[in-house]
Amino acid sequence: MRKIEHLGIAVKDLKASNQLFKKLLGKEHYKEEEVGGEGVMTSFFQVGETKIELLEATRPDSPIAKYLEQKSEGIHHIAFDVEDIHAEVERLIAEGFEILNETPKAGADNKLVVFLHPKSTNGVLVELCQERK
Amino acid sequence: MRKIEHLGIAVKDLKASNQLFKKLLGKEHYKEEEVGGEGVMTSFFQVGETKIELLEATRPDSPIAKYLEQKSEGIHHIAFDVEDIHAEVERLIAEGFEILNETPKAGADNKLVVFLHPKSTNGVLVELCQERK
Repeated sequence: MRKIEHLGIAVKDLKASNQLFKKLLGKEHYKEEEVGGEGVMTSFFQVGETKIELLEATRPDSPIAKYLEQKSEGIHHIAFDVEDIHAEVERLIAEGFEILNETPKAGADNKLVVFLHPKSTNGVLVELCQERK
Repeated sequence: MRKIEHLGIAVKDLKASNQLFKKLLGKEHYKEEEVGGEGVMTSFFQVGETKIELLEATRPDSPIAKYLEQKSEGIHHIAFDVEDIHAEVERLIAEGFEILNETPKAGADNKLVVFLHPKSTNGVLVELCQERK
């Protein structure tokens, strides 16, 4: 866990939230990217070494659509930057954490990602991410 | 907004969560501190340039006790490091954000802090913090 790579925030309307976070952070988002596998459209803001990732659902079975149904807009996950995602998954399984996908999958921003179940991490949805080579 | 200064996570049992986050992050928390004004005991972990702040309520009227009653354990707030908290509060009011305390108050870790109402920030409780001189 070298740094917080990004913070994911679930939003209902990406266009409106891009404007809101522009006012809050005093800067524009630097890119938008669709992640088909997750059913989300994302936008990114850089803040120091970390990014804020806004997430809007693109279909009803998207994890973000389900999150907004059950909860409300707000912080959805913390993503940590790791050097070797396979080694980190092994370490965390040995420590007793529940991994949602042991095989890393494609995330936004050219990353391989793994999620930990929030019930094993104090209610926090934790993502590990490693830059794809 | 120079960087994410810390992420606040509401927990029921600080001692148990210190152990959990030690396993997750692969390192110990580096300090504990009570913030009497907020009715919380905190512990801090360093991750890159950002900190993870675990928050346990020390009395029933603590904002963290109320948060745990209404919601559950999880990410409570994002704190941004600012150079001039007074100027930043003025800028954000002009942008239409609702400020919970316009006069900065004492936070953990030798900081002056101001909170924004989550209803004006997509459900995210945002804290501004400036190092006290």
